[in-house]
Amino acid sequence: MDVAVMHSALVIGTGLMGTSVALALRARGVTVYLRDVDSAAARTAASLGAGTVQPPTETVDLAIVAVPPPLVGKVLADAQGRHLARHYTDVASVKAETQHDVVDLRCDTSCYIGGHPMAGASRSGPLKARGDLFEGRSWALTPTADTDTETLNMALELVTLCGAVPVLMEAAVHDRAVALVSHAPHVVASLVAMRLESAEEREVSLAGPGLRDLTRIAEADAQLWLDILGGNAAAVADLLDELGADLSEMVAGLRAMAATDEAKRSSGTKTVGTMLRRGMSGRSRISGKHGRQPERFESVTVLIGDQQGELARLLTDADRADVNIEDIRIEHATGRQAGLVHVSVAPGMTAPLREALRTGGWHER
Amino acid sequence: MDVAVMHSALVIGTGLMGTSVALALRARGVTVYLRDVDSAAARTAASLGAGTVQPPTETVDLAIVAVPPPLVGKVLADAQGRHLARHYTDVASVKAETQHDVVDLRCDTSCYIGGHPMAGASRSGPLKARGDLFEGRSWALTPTADTDTETLNMALELVTLCGAVPVLMEAAVHDRAVALVSHAPHVVASLVAMRLESAEEREVSLAGPGLRDLTRIAEADAQLWLDILGGNAAAVADLLDELGADLSEMVAGLRAMAATDEAKRSSGTKTVGTMLRRGMSGRSRISGKHGRQPERFESVTVLIGDQQGELARLLTDADRADVNIEDIRIEHATGRQAGLVHVSVAPGMTAPLREALRTGGWHER
Repeated sequence: MDVAVMHSALVIGTGLMGTSVALALRARGVTVYLRDVDSAAARTAASLGAGTVQPPTETVDLAIVAVPPPLVGKVLADAQGRHLARHYTDVASVKAETQHDVVDLRCDTSCYIGGHPMAGASRSGPLKARGDLFEGRSWALTPTADTDTETLNMALELVTLCGAVPVLMEAAVHDRAVALVSHAPHVVASLVAMRLESAEEREVSLAGPGLRDLTRIAEADAQLWLDILGGNAAAVADLLDELGADLSEMVAGLRAMAATDEAKRSSGTKTVGTMLRRGMSGRSRISGKHGRQPERFESVTVLIGDQQGELARLLTDADRADVNIEDIRIEHATGRQAGLVHVSVAPGMTAPLREALRTGGWHER
Repeated sequence: MDVAVMHSALVIGTGLMGTSVALALRARGVTVYLRDVDSAAARTAASLGAGTVQPPTETVDLAIVAVPPPLVGKVLADAQGRHLARHYTDVASVKAETQHDVVDLRCDTSCYIGGHPMAGASRSGPLKARGDLFEGRSWALTPTADTDTETLNMALELVTLCGAVPVLMEAAVHDRAVALVSHAPHVVASLVAMRLESAEEREVSLAGPGLRDLTRIAEADAQLWLDILGGNAAAVADLLDELGADLSEMVAGLRAMAATDEAKRSSGTKTVGTMLRRGMSGRSRISGKHGRQPERFESVTVLIGDQQGELARLLTDADRADVNIEDIRIEHATGRQAGLVHVSVAPGMTAPLREALRTGGWHER
């Protein structure tokens, strides 16, 4: 029978990720055993209601190895040697290296499947853990040809119990995917932000919301990201090389656009235009909310004052329109106590929203 | 006497920018004359209350040349030849090229000053014009050694009447500044988004809010941006070359991090870490709201359902805390009808906010 039912789990490593998984499983009635080389961390997790620090009295259904990526193979080999669980998974952010370690250390690869929940927090440790950390997030699983179907199903149940959405892929594909959608973009944001370091104050004063959004992720803790990039350095470097080639082509196009020769200018314009349009097309692939296909929302923009309660009053008035507000973006004005609020609704729903806002005395921009 | 007082203005070119300037000046009681080669556009602007299409009966205080950048010099020379105004400015998004044209065409450079309001819209034409388009935005002015003080003061009055914040700089500095804070970042966002074009669906499914924010500006109209980049192509190419050099250094650092040699790995880690930290430092230079020095807000995160009114209810409850909400970010969850709302307040103000939200029945994440 292939349908996995999880009754008991062992979480090895009670940091942020392990404790969050434990809390999620406890909330769904699973018996959870906690283990950490730092017994204080395990006790802290237990005190949060994540499970018990007592050793399991029998072989558990699933062991979740939630230790730093370089240690996953060793910890897995040890746990399997002691037959602690029927199935095993991990939550390391990089998968190919872990996969190699698992094979090198002669682990049983039939009852192990790699995993990576796409969630985290800027701080580590069990105290920052939340049972709903994975709610609605993607959770990559990296089965191999060796992986038992029952092990895969047990991992799928883990993902479901944690409220996440499973995405199956090969380890190498996973590492390239996170390099593409997370690691390389992070590096790019840092490089763009780095160029502001030596800029003049009046140059920086011209910056608008576009640049602020683009560089937001560059604010993240450098040490944390150094660790993340360290585990996927080759894949990130490969992607940045591809990006570098595109960048060179773009620069050549722009230089041609700046040329005096008409034919050169026209060819440069064509190159740059094609790349901008391909950017639009790539961007359209990033799914909108709720994992649906991207949807173009329409937005209504109003000016609000900076007084307390303005935004709540605006949204209360907007609700009178009886339309679902899909997104909100606040753009604060430079040098004054006011801001623009862009309220996004489904296409075609702006008319009732406009009417409701007008009735509420708001001025559309 | 150097204090400029604007009684009358002539707007030449009644597109989005010209008509918006005209509307702003009319709202402040300035007599505004409208002119456009397309007389229908001028009449549309007049019908919006932007001024009169009747020719001025006397020399106006200020003429605002709001035509496409390549035409500014010619239109300025013509207007000066007919003594239409005592002072002249323009609103072109690129300044050095315009400056050259103005000199080449032997315009009177003492009564002309270049200008560039940092505002716009995704659509053009007078119908999209708004008198408050420039409210709170930076407005670059590019005086030269030739510029009369009275002309500078008249331009400063224009900026003030439009509700904008003047920033004085040389034309070349301006062009480099917009390349730095707007044009080059736009290209980078397009290049990152372009790499998603050929990605597999499951790779794209791992994308999170960081990538979405980073690539948001790549959604903008490609043709519009092709025009913008065309006017500043050399400066943008120079900046992208610098960025390309940083990118190469980053790739070398990452490759070293992936090496087996310990000393190499350590040197690579140092390179990448330094660059990430410099990115954090550059990012911190982008001013926060209201043009003040960047301020680190603290945020409280709660889960909301997708039902209509949830956000308004949340903000109404938050207002009970009697703290000013500085920013709001909504992060929609993949695959479910729920989202995380990050509510930012001034440092130290999270405690009362937490209390108010708890009282309102909200669950902090």
